[in-house]
Amino acid sequence: MDLYSYFRSSASFRVRIALALKGLPYDYRGVHLVRNEQLDAPYAEISPQRLVPLLQDGDATLTQSLAIIEYLDEVHPEPALLPRDPLGRARVRSLALDIACEIHPLNNLRVLRYLVKELGASEDAKNAWYRHWVESGLEVVERRLAADAATGAFCHGDTPTLADCVLVPQIFNAQRFHCRLDHVPTVMRVFEACMARPAFQAAQPSSCPDAEA
Amino acid sequence: MDLYSYFRSSASFRVRIALALKGLPYDYRGVHLVRNEQLDAPYAEISPQRLVPLLQDGDATLTQSLAIIEYLDEVHPEPALLPRDPLGRARVRSLALDIACEIHPLNNLRVLRYLVKELGASEDAKNAWYRHWVESGLEVVERRLAADAATGAFCHGDTPTLADCVLVPQIFNAQRFHCRLDHVPTVMRVFEACMARPAFQAAQPSSCPDAEA
Repeated sequence: MDLYSYFRSSASFRVRIALALKGLPYDYRGVHLVRNEQLDAPYAEISPQRLVPLLQDGDATLTQSLAIIEYLDEVHPEPALLPRDPLGRARVRSLALDIACEIHPLNNLRVLRYLVKELGASEDAKNAWYRHWVESGLEVVERRLAADAATGAFCHGDTPTLADCVLVPQIFNAQRFHCRLDHVPTVMRVFEACMARPAFQAAQPSSCPDAEA
Repeated sequence: MDLYSYFRSSASFRVRIALALKGLPYDYRGVHLVRNEQLDAPYAEISPQRLVPLLQDGDATLTQSLAIIEYLDEVHPEPALLPRDPLGRARVRSLALDIACEIHPLNNLRVLRYLVKELGASEDAKNAWYRHWVESGLEVVERRLAADAATGAFCHGDTPTLADCVLVPQIFNAQRFHCRLDHVPTVMRVFEACMARPAFQAAQPSSCPDAEA
């Protein structure tokens, strides 16, 4: 398999975690988002979205991080990244979507660029926007994790799931942008449990071949 | 089952389509987003996100539209809203996420409010933002649908899937905000095929008990 990724892309980071948890080897193909490599050939010819991540598995091209992780879980079922029961699966997916739909889309590179270039947002206004969606979005995740007996050492039970694959990269982003995190203690406990695992360490930005200081 | 919904909420619309396609009866519980009913008791006590939709199925509370639809598909498998093969499932999920992660989160009510109230965006600037993400996002979906033999009468094959449940509400939004749609003919062909089906008609905003003119 070939994974097209950028070390700081949190959507790519999600897939790197899933691949590492399943012990699946892959070739890392760096796509430099800040240099806009995603917008031009050769990458633009294989990526309809001009986004990372993208996974090539034989002849198949897979896009969208959550769809890629579900695919990996169907084709390589062990260790499972979703529980077996429909309600548990729904809870894990919903937690993942609380981040993937409510927080991350507002804070990716092209959106921040639009705020600055088209709306004339100042650096301070841009950072306030970033922190607003991260801090309020993580508060939702905290409320859910803290209130539910299904939360274990990880977001759902005592093994990592899709929800943890999505949570951890969001915390990396939050820390990078100096977001408040003292209001989400359960989230941070789960984050620490994840980062104690070699798979999460191996997938983190600083471990990537294209990592920059 | 009880579905908490707002007639104009496109995330709610997705779930209404899935329920209608599967012929599942439910009680409609209106939550008026413009009046901020989602932010206060009693709804805020059951919704950790303060968002719609939310499905109550017996004692279980389900949130996030895509997670709800996957749950419905697992518990009530016929008619299937995902193909059987992992690559087909990945394609349908990825198309759904191209809308649910790349277009819709940028254009929901709370984001538009932030643009106006916090960033001082004018009505014109807000509408340009809206159209930018819809028009560029749908261009991605068009590129994918037009280029792939897996596209049929619907997004994937000749029966509606999760991807169609997500596509149709996005087109309703696009039309409401007068977005360009002449650059996405395959998308519009699929949209018309969907809207010819009674399930999509029954789920549309104007068919909801809380519909307004």
